[in-house]
Amino acid sequence: MSFENYFPVWNELNAAQKELISDSLSARQVKRGTIIHNGSLDCTGLLLVKSGQLRTYILSDEGREITLYRLFDMDMCLLSASCIMRSIQFEVTIEAEKDTELWIIPAEIYKSIMQESAPVANYTNELMATRFSDVMWLMEQIMWKSLDKRVASFLLEETSIEGTNELKITHETIANHLGSHREVITRMLRYFQEEGLVKLSRSKVTVLDIKRLETLQKS
Amino acid sequence: MSFENYFPVWNELNAAQKELISDSLSARQVKRGTIIHNGSLDCTGLLLVKSGQLRTYILSDEGREITLYRLFDMDMCLLSASCIMRSIQFEVTIEAEKDTELWIIPAEIYKSIMQESAPVANYTNELMATRFSDVMWLMEQIMWKSLDKRVASFLLEETSIEGTNELKITHETIANHLGSHREVITRMLRYFQEEGLVKLSRSKVTVLDIKRLETLQKS
Repeated sequence: MSFENYFPVWNELNAAQKELISDSLSARQVKRGTIIHNGSLDCTGLLLVKSGQLRTYILSDEGREITLYRLFDMDMCLLSASCIMRSIQFEVTIEAEKDTELWIIPAEIYKSIMQESAPVANYTNELMATRFSDVMWLMEQIMWKSLDKRVASFLLEETSIEGTNELKITHETIANHLGSHREVITRMLRYFQEEGLVKLSRSKVTVLDIKRLETLQKS
Repeated sequence: MSFENYFPVWNELNAAQKELISDSLSARQVKRGTIIHNGSLDCTGLLLVKSGQLRTYILSDEGREITLYRLFDMDMCLLSASCIMRSIQFEVTIEAEKDTELWIIPAEIYKSIMQESAPVANYTNELMATRFSDVMWLMEQIMWKSLDKRVASFLLEETSIEGTNELKITHETIANHLGSHREVITRMLRYFQEEGLVKLSRSKVTVLDIKRLETLQKS
């Protein structure tokens, strides 16, 4: 499948706009663990994920992290091109969580098309609304949900993404996803283990009881 | 001043679009304390504040609140018309914090113009990016800042908005702004009083030392 199939408003572009994008588009392959975009650096451009997995997160001055959302196949990343809108006044970091293939549209090219095309501007609006909704969901989790429920949700999400109950993940990594501390996560996971929900081993968390994790998450 | 002076992209509308908005626009005056928009109800429309003050907040199942942002003169409220974009998947409540005059543009009228007009779509994008940035700022405060700093920031913001150091505000209200509990806020304010930062009396918090509150907020 080529770029046209991945970009939802391709058919609403005129010939000149299609040419502009085709000529400036670049394909890139990144290894798992690569930092693709770093808030303090320049405008990377719009990222369209062909295959793989990206994680968008914020970072505190002390190096604490919290995951805002993930991007999968066919997802478009807007915040890596935050310079296209002057009102985006925050910085995120984006890393490849798996080996990832992506296309990059230069920010100034996208911006010039968005300025003149209502369909592209409205598509961009929907993208932003989607990420805004992700962050609002996260805010509600942080504000109203206790950490045991958030850890349960995270483990369930991971087993679903990875398609296995054996998660190769450290307590540190879980803490970074949830904006917590390693020690706190370790204590919670040990409690889950005592309750028979998971089994812990070196750099691995095995989910034993999905049903009860789901019940805990909803309670 | 009339509506045209308040709506930034008025001059980029064509004659038909201007007529459509003028004919459907309604003016409204609301008393302090009025709930103007409630997430679970229908799409209220876009609100343009002529004068006054609105507060946008989220509400938990248990009735806890946290303020997302405030709107002042000339601000436009998008989330009261969340039906214009299917990707807005969260609900907010909007109340008048002061007696407020506003205009309401019906959501379906605005949506139809946004669909065909690149300037209106891009203006909407900037609005959404502004609110998204407000929420990201709040998220960073909640995640990385301790409550004493957040209470200090809130008191400083209030003295600035109200133009006085004598704030007529209850501990309950402060808790609702910050997503905290009354008891926690009371304890914090008593600590501030012992430190000579504020003076507490019935339904009133008097800020005594702005300089030190500023230092605390930044530390």
